[in-house]
Amino acid sequence: MKKKEYLLGKVYGLLEPGPVVLLTTQRGGKSNVMTLSWHMMMDFEPPLVGCVVSNRNYTFEILSETRECVINIPTVELAKKVVACGNASGRTVDKFKKYGLTAEPASNVEAPLIAECYANLECRVADMRMVESYCMFVLEVVKAWMDPKTKWARTMHHLGKGVFMIAGKRMKLRSKMK
Amino acid sequence: MKKKEYLLGKVYGLLEPGPVVLLTTQRGGKSNVMTLSWHMMMDFEPPLVGCVVSNRNYTFEILSETRECVINIPTVELAKKVVACGNASGRTVDKFKKYGLTAEPASNVEAPLIAECYANLECRVADMRMVESYCMFVLEVVKAWMDPKTKWARTMHHLGKGVFMIAGKRMKLRSKMK
Repeated sequence: MKKKEYLLGKVYGLLEPGPVVLLTTQRGGKSNVMTLSWHMMMDFEPPLVGCVVSNRNYTFEILSETRECVINIPTVELAKKVVACGNASGRTVDKFKKYGLTAEPASNVEAPLIAECYANLECRVADMRMVESYCMFVLEVVKAWMDPKTKWARTMHHLGKGVFMIAGKRMKLRSKMK
Repeated sequence: MKKKEYLLGKVYGLLEPGPVVLLTTQRGGKSNVMTLSWHMMMDFEPPLVGCVVSNRNYTFEILSETRECVINIPTVELAKKVVACGNASGRTVDKFKKYGLTAEPASNVEAPLIAECYANLECRVADMRMVESYCMFVLEVVKAWMDPKTKWARTMHHLGKGVFMIAGKRMKLRSKMK
């Protein structure tokens, strides 16, 4: 799919509903990807995203060192790959190769975009003060990409132990909320 | 609905999918409620939850002072009330009264449970170090309640500007993930 640049001021609407995401990193020319559900928006613009990455994960050390990553948002068509990425470690497996994910170059960071995901958010680590206590990173989204054909993303939302809720119907209510 | 105590070790499965929640607080015998989407799990047990509450919100000052709150999880039947709570301030409106929400006493905190929500998480503020920089509170869930009749909660997930995604179908994949 051919992505278009997406307004940074609209990024919150992609993460606020709480989808499972794939976090990509790169170090020494080697890419890695992990499955992540523990994230939240922290500011609108520039978009800040908090996330918790266990220090048992390979991604933790790469992210701490390179301070760059990409948040890739998958839809349900990628469900098996999303779960596979959550059950293997990049220390022993090249998950891109093994699970058939396509790494594309990002424009502002070394970490790759996942071509199969409908949205990709290039991020730099903005704050590491909560890493020691909570393995929490504050990320700033510096560039965002979106598949313009995806109007109604059937995102996956993890309920625990491999059970996922798939994004259902939409409804609009009159609101002044951003 | 008659709630039952819910295991603290299972709380992450309620918040990880990213539902809109209603945050209740209490000060001087006066209860307040706000709508919140910016939250994430930070640890399994005891369950830690990060959340960002704007310092323009009335809840910000009550939460900072009392260091207690309840996270109430609504389903789509409460959609109009959820949006109404997000569009008014407790400084000028008694939202419980105006929107017909029922406050029930919690067991470990002064803030009330919302009877109409299918799950209620009693919380104490565990860490305020990120409040100054990001208006972010780390909450510890000290007691959890659940309606045992709700097996498939049709939670609401905010996409921005009053547009919500309603929780759709569930699927289970083989996974070692917690």
